[in-house]
Amino acid sequence: MTLKNDLFLRALKGETVERPPVWMMRQAGRYLPEFMEIREKYDFFTRCRTPELASEITVQPIRRYGMDAAILFSDILVIPQAMNIEVQMKPNFGPYLPNPIRSQKDVDAVVVPDVHEELGYVMEAIKHTKELLNDEVPLIGFAGSPWTILCYCVQGQGSKNFDIAKSFCFSQPIAAHALLQKITDTTIAYLIAKVEAGVDAVQVFDSWGGMLAPEDYSEFSWKYIQQIIDALKDLVPVIAFGKGCWFALPEMAKSGAAALGVDWTCSAKNARYLTGGQITLQGNFDPARLLSPPAEITRRVHQMIDEFGKDRYIANLGHGILPNIPLENAEAFIEAVKSYKVS
Amino acid sequence: MTLKNDLFLRALKGETVERPPVWMMRQAGRYLPEFMEIREKYDFFTRCRTPELASEITVQPIRRYGMDAAILFSDILVIPQAMNIEVQMKPNFGPYLPNPIRSQKDVDAVVVPDVHEELGYVMEAIKHTKELLNDEVPLIGFAGSPWTILCYCVQGQGSKNFDIAKSFCFSQPIAAHALLQKITDTTIAYLIAKVEAGVDAVQVFDSWGGMLAPEDYSEFSWKYIQQIIDALKDLVPVIAFGKGCWFALPEMAKSGAAALGVDWTCSAKNARYLTGGQITLQGNFDPARLLSPPAEITRRVHQMIDEFGKDRYIANLGHGILPNIPLENAEAFIEAVKSYKVS
Repeated sequence: MTLKNDLFLRALKGETVERPPVWMMRQAGRYLPEFMEIREKYDFFTRCRTPELASEITVQPIRRYGMDAAILFSDILVIPQAMNIEVQMKPNFGPYLPNPIRSQKDVDAVVVPDVHEELGYVMEAIKHTKELLNDEVPLIGFAGSPWTILCYCVQGQGSKNFDIAKSFCFSQPIAAHALLQKITDTTIAYLIAKVEAGVDAVQVFDSWGGMLAPEDYSEFSWKYIQQIIDALKDLVPVIAFGKGCWFALPEMAKSGAAALGVDWTCSAKNARYLTGGQITLQGNFDPARLLSPPAEITRRVHQMIDEFGKDRYIANLGHGILPNIPLENAEAFIEAVKSYKVS
Repeated sequence: MTLKNDLFLRALKGETVERPPVWMMRQAGRYLPEFMEIREKYDFFTRCRTPELASEITVQPIRRYGMDAAILFSDILVIPQAMNIEVQMKPNFGPYLPNPIRSQKDVDAVVVPDVHEELGYVMEAIKHTKELLNDEVPLIGFAGSPWTILCYCVQGQGSKNFDIAKSFCFSQPIAAHALLQKITDTTIAYLIAKVEAGVDAVQVFDSWGGMLAPEDYSEFSWKYIQQIIDALKDLVPVIAFGKGCWFALPEMAKSGAAALGVDWTCSAKNARYLTGGQITLQGNFDPARLLSPPAEITRRVHQMIDEFGKDRYIANLGHGILPNIPLENAEAFIEAVKSYKVS
């Protein structure tokens, strides 16, 4: 059960390492031709729900590039789906929820499911993936933050500003909190089940936390992420990633999370300052900067590591990799971290 | 020529005032029934190009609520339109540019126009509006930042992450800078013409600056806004507003801008800290928070003023008002500022 490469877990513990570990958010994704082959044959939820497919997709980037961690292929919206909220994935459109939640009555109809029953396919995929990984690198499990899940459940689709979701919270706060608590309870049970099935760490993605003012973020988002951290942190290391949530970093640093993700608008210096300098940070290369020529990617990655420091640091992008990134550019990113030497 | 209400201009100079001035970004907008009446009869660019319509729309919110400043009804995309780039405004879609710029050759075809010839209708609208305003309150003119204009010109439409625009900058930086300079030259001539026509202050909107990492922001956005400030600041006060650009506030505070706009993710305390405490700040009520009940809006507005302080401060939203805001809620926002008393 000992991992051959435990760099990622050591960085999460804050241990001194020879170089930072590296992985990429959405590393099992559309930029990979081997992923596109599977994508042409099976629709989105079939890929999520079939353990053989999800595990194969999960290990594809590890085979090609040898990242220091794998992240289970899945989607944050399997949670509302398991809660009896219909979720469709429309081609060229993204997620679509035909019956969005807009009232207390809608919230009352939302179910906190038995996660083993409704999401057992995820646990099967984890077991499959662990076999394929053969103890080479650790496996990360993930979930969306309750606020981010609420955004989709109420808005009904992606949005630039999630104005309907925010309006719901601000005009019907009691219903909003009831929904957030149901999502939180489900998410905690789900992540615990993932740990039992074998994931070595978990990451909570708060993709839309940055839409909220600091006070509203504490009330509608952070409060629930903290519950998740409290429930999980003694089982596995927890990484909390809030896109655009720089303002909350001081609070997040005190949460018991093993590491915090930061996006590219927050410099290493600002991130270290805001978090007090002790916690492991993860990030924050601008995904669009992977369109630069490979030599420039290498230079910028080395500069990024210099700025964060090689310890208490996990090299990553600041958000998911874009579908149009050339393979050699993704490789340049990974190799730049692997070849890093303290200057 | 002396304004009856010069509170806004005094706050821009940093003078001590009895209460902060107040206006709302996009205050001449879809939440107003009198605006919707005009909107039903005339399409978007007809409204922009007809001085009688643009001036009438501009003064509508002042008549109803008595804000301390008017802002000329127009659109940031009149600039690319004047530069020989086709811009359409599609119902239920937003801006659409059928021939987006993707190469040096495309950039070469972009024209730096005679703004009096191509945008004379804006200057006419300003003269009309000044007559209607009858020296009651000052009139603000505006332009998009060159980076934000480039985003639309290259992406061809709105976007969550403007990945195509960013890719263009990162893979063809020489072409990108040539385009940015052409937009900057046009914008400077345009804003100077607006000042000559009678506007009392100008605001530069960098709506998409927050998509960029700090280093890229300096290179692709701020550099050009600084040129605009340098060219305008001795003529009228300049307000620079960058949504999501908290990380650039220290640099912006040294620019010669009279005031800086901040969005709601940057608390008053953070904004004062990042800008050194001396410059006038404008913002930053979350537009979605105008969905709260009026009594709560009043409480939150008073708290916001307490936190920013009544001096060197212009009360505003952190972005444009949403179309679904009830009239009484907009009124509660304006009245809360007008009724503010130092406690």
